[in-house]
Parts: sequence; structure tokens; C-alpha cells
Amino acid sequence: MSKNLTKRADDYSKWYNELVVKADLAENSAVRGCMVIKPYGYAIWEKMQAELDRMFKETGHKNAYFPLFVPKSLFEAEEKNAEGFAKECAIVTHYRLQNDPDKPGKLRVDPEAKLEEELVVRPTSEAIIWNTFKGWIQSYRDLPLLINQWANVVRWEMRTRLFLRTAEFLWQEGHTAHATKEQALDEAKLMNSVYAEFAENFMAIPVIKGLKSESERFAGAEDTYCIEALMQDGKALQAGTSHFLGQNFAKAFDVKFTNKEGQLDYVWATSWGVSTRLMGALIMTHSDDHGLVLPPNLAPTQVVIVPIFKTEEQHEAIRLLVQKIKSSLASVGVTVEFDDRDTQRPGAKFAQHELQGVPLRIAIGPRDLENGTVELAQRHNLSKEVVAIDQLESYIPKLLKDIQQQLFDKALKFRDDHISSVDTFEDFKKVLESKGGFISAHWDGTPETEQKIKELTKATIRCIPDDKVDEPGKCIYTGKPSPYRVLFAKAY
Amino acid sequence: MSKNLTKRADDYSKWYNELVVKADLAENSAVRGCMVIKPYGYAIWEKMQAELDRMFKETGHKNAYFPLFVPKSLFEAEEKNAEGFAKECAIVTHYRLQNDPDKPGKLRVDPEAKLEEELVVRPTSEAIIWNTFKGWIQSYRDLPLLINQWANVVRWEMRTRLFLRTAEFLWQEGHTAHATKEQALDEAKLMNSVYAEFAENFMAIPVIKGLKSESERFAGAEDTYCIEALMQDGKALQAGTSHFLGQNFAKAFDVKFTNKEGQLDYVWATSWGVSTRLMGALIMTHSDDHGLVLPPNLAPTQVVIVPIFKTEEQHEAIRLLVQKIKSSLASVGVTVEFDDRDTQRPGAKFAQHELQGVPLRIAIGPRDLENGTVELAQRHNLSKEVVAIDQLESYIPKLLKDIQQQLFDKALKFRDDHISSVDTFEDFKKVLESKGGFISAHWDGTPETEQKIKELTKATIRCIPDDKVDEPGKCIYTGKPSPYRVLFAKAY
Repeated sequence: MSKNLTKRADDYSKWYNELVVKADLAENSAVRGCMVIKPYGYAIWEKMQAELDRMFKETGHKNAYFPLFVPKSLFEAEEKNAEGFAKECAIVTHYRLQNDPDKPGKLRVDPEAKLEEELVVRPTSEAIIWNTFKGWIQSYRDLPLLINQWANVVRWEMRTRLFLRTAEFLWQEGHTAHATKEQALDEAKLMNSVYAEFAENFMAIPVIKGLKSESERFAGAEDTYCIEALMQDGKALQAGTSHFLGQNFAKAFDVKFTNKEGQLDYVWATSWGVSTRLMGALIMTHSDDHGLVLPPNLAPTQVVIVPIFKTEEQHEAIRLLVQKIKSSLASVGVTVEFDDRDTQRPGAKFAQHELQGVPLRIAIGPRDLENGTVELAQRHNLSKEVVAIDQLESYIPKLLKDIQQQLFDKALKFRDDHISSVDTFEDFKKVLESKGGFISAHWDGTPETEQKIKELTKATIRCIPDDKVDEPGKCIYTGKPSPYRVLFAKAY
Repeated sequence: MSKNLTKRADDYSKWYNELVVKADLAENSAVRGCMVIKPYGYAIWEKMQAELDRMFKETGHKNAYFPLFVPKSLFEAEEKNAEGFAKECAIVTHYRLQNDPDKPGKLRVDPEAKLEEELVVRPTSEAIIWNTFKGWIQSYRDLPLLINQWANVVRWEMRTRLFLRTAEFLWQEGHTAHATKEQALDEAKLMNSVYAEFAENFMAIPVIKGLKSESERFAGAEDTYCIEALMQDGKALQAGTSHFLGQNFAKAFDVKFTNKEGQLDYVWATSWGVSTRLMGALIMTHSDDHGLVLPPNLAPTQVVIVPIFKTEEQHEAIRLLVQKIKSSLASVGVTVEFDDRDTQRPGAKFAQHELQGVPLRIAIGPRDLENGTVELAQRHNLSKEVVAIDQLESYIPKLLKDIQQQLFDKALKFRDDHISSVDTFEDFKKVLESKGGFISAHWDGTPETEQKIKELTKATIRCIPDDKVDEPGKCIYTGKPSPYRVLFAKAY
């Protein structure tokens, strides 16, 4: 199976598209730009969800659910937000179909069933949520209000790619309300840190935390914090964002509270989200020409066991042994699958599990039965070793932890090797075309210059990194003064 | 708080509506017929989801995700299904908004951005899923295909009520494909049993398993299995359905497979679902005039601890003690919340937790500190007792289990007391108006008679129970022969 996969060096984009489909993660659907997330892809997404949900709850957030639809009059209330999303919205205009009088057996929209007010399918939920928060917040006692929602959203993107940019996607969106500006800012930063911790510790994806420039900010936000990851082809990927919304939505929806001093004031807001786009980041950070590579934390199956036998007697003996190994590994928290299908040969099974990124593969044959050993293969480095069966229970949990760390270290080294500091626009273009990656450069701070650089090079400012160093310099494009370097890159 | 709740005997419907809002479970939104599920309500739904998801996985099902939208041409492919849902569909016709030239600052639908083919917001996903299954199924080796989806769906209901009937609701929908009719029938029955087990063991709601009559069948199904519960006002509530779809969808979407004999055949199908409607069943089975009553399995907080003190010294001593009690109870799997808010008095806290159905309340005052005791109050029977602190760890888990059982037993007794056997239409109407509940009666098996009885009494056939007894008799309405009794009721 994996032999048919395009090599990354030949066509990275094609490699990605093929991998997503061949590894059974997702596929295109009959609906333009909408994907089907297949069971294997969804199982990985569920692992991300569970960990994020745990982290949100640990930081005091509660889940709730708000309507899929936003009435147009609410949608347009916060003007910048509306402007940012108006061009890519699915709009519900009717609520009934009827038999088509001209085409027997076919349906048509019933012209009589036109809605008085059109409904926007949520591209994001600030509008409907802040309209609801108005009823929930009266006094400082109701604050902070820390809400998260797991939901589907729709943005009518013109050019779509599985996981990376789809018309419908799954995400979580946090929406919080606070009594003071400072508390809202702290929350926005905290959640960006939660995302960074999740990306690095759970997904083994190193990220740079920072602030978006004005032109890359979320529509309706005062500030957008983000985590930026680097893909193997040298392009950056925004993996999560956390917005300080100021009092914009509170003003648009008239959400005021009585503070401790008895005075009325508008509430301060944040919102933050990550989506199924993380699946794209996962694939493009770790995988190789053989297929998917999964960090053990995210693997629906951490160890797969494949039996190799000639006689039914051998098969039976292997089965008995596997039951022991399975329960022994399960007892130390390892997820094991016994691939005992009789419809596939061992070679085909090996190829499939390699393509699907199962971190460890155990093969057991007749000689292993005699020797009390197994063959243990690691997916990420393709190494094999013979291990005594009675060692597995202590060895495998350690090895899985080790692989998780190795994947992070490797991605971190690649990322750090691909941050280039440049001081001229010539060098900027040269590095961008040859090496790619993040380019650390001075910028005069204006949207005009950022726009010009984008037009000329396709690179955008990914972020003003949190760990930037005060170092006065000159903008690579205009030569005007700049207080510190920012990170540019071409991006997904 | 609870004092303002309408009494069930005065107005059951009003009691329900008030309870949902006052207990902070859900509220109406700005979108006609769509609800906001509030954090407390959502936390209960999450408990249901987790348990159902576990049961689905244990029976071999895998989760996946399919598009929200169904192109009209796919939607109409299975005619009966299309006919059943066409009248209540939200339809997306456009994909962009633009500035309204007549109203500055307002948006309007961009007439240029009309979709070539309208998209139906899924009221159920058979069409989009079977169109996808076509690509997944070639051979008997691909079967059975056992898929579940957690999703939102939209049905444009004209008369809506929180949880019971909303334009958008959350649900799970299982969709399976099988090589033989028998296997598909077994699956449909199995999942109906899973639902029954979930309702009875987890939600403490006794249900009757059975088969729907033709007129109550799912649009596009050959058979619909269901579980029916009885609410306190004597009306039935359909709590879950499982459909045997025959080869209807396989034929509509041309899904064939090669069987073991090498011949092509259409695939056999099932689908099954439960929704946020279960929240309505939960409320109307167990709650009382004081508010919500939650079975311990479903309670986000099983035990709430309220401190009662006059001095800060007492408060501090109680706090220390509570930490010990909390970790001791957590160690035996009990969910405990310490309600240490300084914005509410103990009385207000008591009222709130009563209204929200927290199964057990512990109050600790200065005298308890001296005696090493607490006051333990049970929500469902409003009893109070004094318990020694060192007894809590062993007593509370047992008590919670006991309460779960008591709630089930009470609901079962009520249900069984409200199944009446009648042999004449006069008695049928009399029982229906006086006592309500299920009425076990003979029926001639025709949709015409069922329709007539419905028109005259508003009662419908809830199901032909699985445990029906072969007992020839005469239809209560037409006098024609009937092989067994079926269950009628007025229903939600």
C-alpha cells in the first residue's frame, strides 16, 4: 500500500492529499468543500478532544451548546466581525421543500416557505453567544463566565483541502466574559498557553507563541494570540488562536454588569479555538514517505500484533500467547490491537499499519513461540529488534514515552534549524525561496509594508513572538526603524 | 427559588417549562425553535453521551463524521425518506452576504451568490452517509460496517418545546451495513436493547421495547423498533428508535457488494438514534414540585457540601474538614462540590441545589465540628439524617446506588400502575381521559383504524410490545379480529 504514496520530495502537496485518503483519515464528500472524517481519523480527533476538554475543565471552563444558526440581524451587530465573515457564509433562506410540479419524483424549494429573516450558518459563534450572555450577566458576581462549545462551523472557502481548509469543520470555541480588561487579557494569554502545552506535550508539535499583526487579527478582536507550527515543507501553520475582544461584543450586544462599586460597565471578552485543522498539522509535522507517523499519545492503537503461522496449531498457540500479552500491556495502560484478520496476509497488514502510523508492531511467528520472543518494530524510525516476551510489559510503556519525546525533539530541531535571521530584503527573498521556514526580520510595524511584502513574496507575518528581544533595527523593506524582529513565513 | 415553581398538579406543562429554565438546563434562543443548552444541562448530556459512546464501542461501533449539508439531489434519492422530511427542512440557497446598498451598516444576501444546487441542513443523515458508503463497500469483507455519528440535526418543527421538540437538536445516529437481512434485523434489535439497557440502568427510566406500527415508522424504514417511557402526567415519550431499513437506501444509492459466492447483492441497512430529547424524559420521569431529581449516575455533582458558620475561625475549621471529606469521597468515585460561595446564604444554596437535583447535600455547622458529624439530606425523598464523618466514605457510595435503584423502582411502579387493559372503545376513552398511561387493547392492524382512533382520542399506538402475548381478540374500534394487544397512549 505505502509503495503507491507519492514521495514528499517529489510533490509535498500531493503526498499530503494521498496520505489523508490512503491512511483512512478523511475523504472528500458530495458536498463541495465538506469532508467525511473516517473512523480512523475521527478516533485521533477524539483523543485530541478528550485531552483538550480535560485541560479546559481543569482551568475552570464549562461546556454548553448554542444554536447552529445566527439571525442576520445579530450576525451584523458587531460590524468588523460581520465584515470579516460575510463573504463566506452559508445562508438558510427557506424552511421547506415541496414536490416539483415539473419533475415528478423530484423536490424543489417551496417558494412560500421563505424565512422572514435569513439565518447564517455559524462561521463562529460570538454573535449568538453574546446575545445570550446578555441574559446571563447582571453583576460582577456572574463573572468571570467561562464557557466552551464543541461544534461544527461553516465558512464558504473557495479553495479547500482536507483538514486544512474545509467549508465545514469541527472545532471548539471558548467564549469568556470578565469584569476587567486585565482579567480578559490574562485569560486570552492563558488559553494560548494551554494550546501551546497541548500541541507540544500531547501532539509533539513544537510551537511559537506570539501575537498577530493587525492585518492577521481575528475580525472583531483587539488582539489575537496564536501558536504557530512549522511543517516539513517549510511552511508555517497557525495551530490555534486566542482573542482578546475588548468590549466590542459587549457594546454590540449591550452586555453590561454592575461592578463592586455599584456602577454599570461593559463586560470584557475573549474567544479562542482550535479545529480539525490540527489533524493537518499532525500529519505534516511527523509523517514520512511511508505514511502516517503518530505520536503514541494520539494513536488509537499504540501496539498492533500480527500473527505469522503456517499451521492452525501454530495459529492457536500464537492466539493464546497474544491474549496474555494483550492483557499484560492493557494492565499498564497500553492500547493493543490483535490483527487476526484472515482476509489479509502479514505483508499487507504490515504495510497497512505502517501507512496508518501505528507506533509499534509486534510480529509473532513459530520461532518466537519456541524462543519466548517477539519481533518489535518501531514505526517512526523503522527499526526492528527481538524482545523477550516477559520484558514487554516493562519495556513498551517506556518505549512509547521515549518515542513521543523523540518525535518532539526531531520536530523541534527541524523547526529551530528553519528559523533564519535576515537583515535585507534580498536575503529575505533568498532564504524564503531556498530554505523556507520562519524568517526573523525587522518590520516597520505598518499594515502597508506587511501587505507589500506579502504581495512580493507570499510571506506573511506569522507572529510577533512572545520571546522577542528588544533590539532596535531597520525594516527590511522600508528601512524605517523597528523595535524588534518579527517572524515571517509562507503559511497554510 | 423552588417556591416559585408551578406545581405539577396545577399545570404540568408549565411546571416542565419553568423547571428547565429555573434549574439552568436550557433556554430559548434568538433563533426560532432553537435552544441554548446551558452548562448544567450540557453536563448531564455529556454523562449520557459518555455512557452511550462506551456502549456503542463495546458493541463494535466506530465514530465518524459526515457533512452537515445534503445536496438536494441526494436528499430526494430515497423517496419515502425525502417525503417524510421535506416539509421541515432548513435550506441553504446562498453562500455570501454583502453590504445592503439601501441600508448602510446592514447586510443582505448577495443575489449573485446563489448555489447551483440547494443544500438541505441534515434532518437525519441516511442520504449523505449511504452516498458515502457506496465508496466504502465492495465485498463481504467490508461488512458489517458499524458507524456512529454524534451530531446536530435540524427539523423545522412548528411547535417547539425545550428538549422535547426543537428545530435543532443534538443526537447520535448509528448507520450500519450488513451482508444479510438477518444480520441487519439482529443489529436493529440489538441497538434497541442497548437503548433500553441505557434508559433503565443508567437513567433509571423503565421502558417498553417494541415495534412501531406502519404509520409511526421512520420514513424509509421497513421496521422501526423503539423504547417507550411513561411520563408522570400519563403521556408516553418515545425515548429511542432503531430502524431496519431493508435494502431501501442501498437501492437508492446503488450500494452493492460481492458476497462469498461471488455474486453482487444490495447491502442491508439499519439506523438508530437517541437525542437531547432524553433530557425531557429524564426531567418528566423523576422530578417533583421542588425541582429536578437526578439519578446519581447522571448527576454532574453527586454530593454538595454547604458550610454553615458564624465566625471566620469556624469557617476555616470547616474548610479543612471539607478537604478531607472531598478527597475521601473522591477516592471512592463520588463527585463532590464544595459550595463555598460568599455571595449566597446557606438557605439560598439549599434551595438552588434542591432545584437542580443534586442527589445528596451535606451541611456542616459548628456543632458538627464538635461532634464529628454532618447533616446529610437526600434530594429525592427530602429526608435528613446525622451521619458520623468517618462513616461517609463507606455509606455514601452505597446510598447513591440505593437512590439510583429507588428512583427506578418508583418510576417502574408508576408505569406498571398505568398500564390498563381495556376491551371496549368506551372504556378506552374513559381510561385515557381519567387515568392516562398506556392502554393495552386489541386493534385490527390497519392504519385506517389507527388514524381514526387518533382523530377521536389523540392516542396513538406507541408500540407492539416485544413481550406481547398471543391472545386473539376483537379490535376495540372496528370489532375485527386481532391477534394480540398493542399499547396505545397520548404521547409527547
